[in-house]
Amino acid sequence: MEFRILHQSHSSQARICKIRTLHGEFTTPVFIPVGTQGTVKAVCSRDLEELGVEILLVNTYHLYLRPGHSVIKEIGGIHSFMGWNGPVLSDSGGFQIYSLADLAEIGEEGVKFRSHIDGSIHLLTPEKAVEIQEALGADIIMCLDHCIPYTSQYDKVARSVEITTKWALRSIKRKMKNGQALFGIIQGGTFWELRERSITDLLKLDFDGYAIGGLCVGEEDKAREEIVKATALTLPKDRPIYLMGIGRPDEIVDAVSYGVDMFDCVLPTRNARNGTLFTWEGKINIRNARYREDQHPIEEDCSCYTCSRYSRAYLRHLFNTKELLAYRLSTIHNLSFFCRFMQRLREAIKMDKLDQFRNTVLKIFG
Amino acid sequence: MEFRILHQSHSSQARICKIRTLHGEFTTPVFIPVGTQGTVKAVCSRDLEELGVEILLVNTYHLYLRPGHSVIKEIGGIHSFMGWNGPVLSDSGGFQIYSLADLAEIGEEGVKFRSHIDGSIHLLTPEKAVEIQEALGADIIMCLDHCIPYTSQYDKVARSVEITTKWALRSIKRKMKNGQALFGIIQGGTFWELRERSITDLLKLDFDGYAIGGLCVGEEDKAREEIVKATALTLPKDRPIYLMGIGRPDEIVDAVSYGVDMFDCVLPTRNARNGTLFTWEGKINIRNARYREDQHPIEEDCSCYTCSRYSRAYLRHLFNTKELLAYRLSTIHNLSFFCRFMQRLREAIKMDKLDQFRNTVLKIFG
Repeated sequence: MEFRILHQSHSSQARICKIRTLHGEFTTPVFIPVGTQGTVKAVCSRDLEELGVEILLVNTYHLYLRPGHSVIKEIGGIHSFMGWNGPVLSDSGGFQIYSLADLAEIGEEGVKFRSHIDGSIHLLTPEKAVEIQEALGADIIMCLDHCIPYTSQYDKVARSVEITTKWALRSIKRKMKNGQALFGIIQGGTFWELRERSITDLLKLDFDGYAIGGLCVGEEDKAREEIVKATALTLPKDRPIYLMGIGRPDEIVDAVSYGVDMFDCVLPTRNARNGTLFTWEGKINIRNARYREDQHPIEEDCSCYTCSRYSRAYLRHLFNTKELLAYRLSTIHNLSFFCRFMQRLREAIKMDKLDQFRNTVLKIFG
Repeated sequence: MEFRILHQSHSSQARICKIRTLHGEFTTPVFIPVGTQGTVKAVCSRDLEELGVEILLVNTYHLYLRPGHSVIKEIGGIHSFMGWNGPVLSDSGGFQIYSLADLAEIGEEGVKFRSHIDGSIHLLTPEKAVEIQEALGADIIMCLDHCIPYTSQYDKVARSVEITTKWALRSIKRKMKNGQALFGIIQGGTFWELRERSITDLLKLDFDGYAIGGLCVGEEDKAREEIVKATALTLPKDRPIYLMGIGRPDEIVDAVSYGVDMFDCVLPTRNARNGTLFTWEGKINIRNARYREDQHPIEEDCSCYTCSRYSRAYLRHLFNTKELLAYRLSTIHNLSFFCRFMQRLREAIKMDKLDQFRNTVLKIFG
């Protein structure tokens, strides 16, 4: 992986970078759409190409359970499987086991968990997580980390940091030299002292990039923002910083100003399937009766496929009648919004106008 | 509407025709995908354009109930609403009221029915059916017909023919001279004498085309084929003949040999959403475990978007995980198959090799 800083802001830690992977490069700050089970829900890979999406995320946990990493390897890897030739990042499964599976047991060795699909028992170790992600062939892979609820006491969080560090070391030892980039994940909950310890531990291991994990587990916005800020400001500037699971426009802008480069979140795609659409005038619910005869596209100046061909009235009708096309057209638009949002964000950094952009965003989405 | 016979077979009634409408022309024999609620389920209008689909069908019954024909008129008509600029045929609602709604009352005036969506009561008259279809702005519109179950006694069927004829006359009287083509629908169940009477009645009214209706209501294949054959052979050759609701490849070939030009059916699209895919080696169920690691496209020599980018293994995975993309990719392929099927059928007519083609089709799908 090659990491280049193209532009560094004067007034904040915000920056524009290029990251080159085995399957091409992408520009940061970047928003990564989530393709949980090997598909960004409701859209196809050509839709994503047309939107200018540069990198996708897939979930190790889901793909390990179905169809199995060996099947995907057999087909030629995740790129060939999904019909997507650009960069792919696979997460390690730590967060999904925490949030979806029944945790049977957690120890030094790894996590024993019960599949949320068929109840079968599996052991995921840091070595196994690397092995699965090597079989998938993602361009950026993540260490297995140890996620715990935000209500956990200090001692439990300290223990999770300790385990995450040990697992990080084992991940590095297991990993082949095959050009895949490996990122470590900072844990420590909302205890800054523990976050600091996690940073110190993982920096010694010299990862290709650093992710801020263990957030979005119930903590308050304020607490999250403080941890993101302190963590991002402490991490070294010569590697990508990736804030996992965050996607609210206002949170993205703040995190970027602290130096974060990469984001992923189901927000735009999940919202789309509920009929909640992003525009520069705020979020709208397209199922609302006010759009019944609305001939306009979702956004006049959006050039996405949906806006170039369909009216709000048609979208509303598709939701109202539960037609499958509703989900794809809405997802295309929301991803288009996020692409344009990140583009304007990068332009604001380049022009050193991030504060101004932040005010605009807060007015609309804050 | 302009109707031109380009090629008449020597050995059967099969023929190749061009039909020009207000929104461009299409070549027959044609298979018309069904866009019940103003969308061919799971695909978008660009998908249909890319497949070479030339004409779509929409349902008056559904669009009248949701979003309402006045809404569609407000948006600029069905073409603008759906983002589809090619020919559109709208059916009259007769069959949907028969199959979906609770029939409250049927009389000379029209059909009083209870909506399958919210239980509200509506009166559909032949005049109203024309009025709705004029608001939709379809290129070919259908008279309201009177559908009854195949178990009906002779007298009841005779009465339905009588009503259908009266309604056909009222439809013509109500219709504006606006370039929309109007088709009459032959009724008469499986009683040839009544079909003959219906043909004689409707021929006097000089429609732009004639549809064979009232089939697929439970009658046996053999009875249906005999009625289709006798009806198609009796109808005049200077107008299009449209067999409503039929789409099985073997039935299409037979009907074409009797002179039928147009077909519509939910078969390829509904099958697709169940994972049943059409190929020149027969139908396959893509959810089958045998496709788990199958790297091949659904069909090697199919150039549809699905086959050009995705493997059977990926399709199977999408169905297995209930991912929305499954339905679109499968629908694209099945419609591609039907387009190619009709193309080969037209070539067979041109080469006077329909018998040979029929044998091939029977071997695969019979």
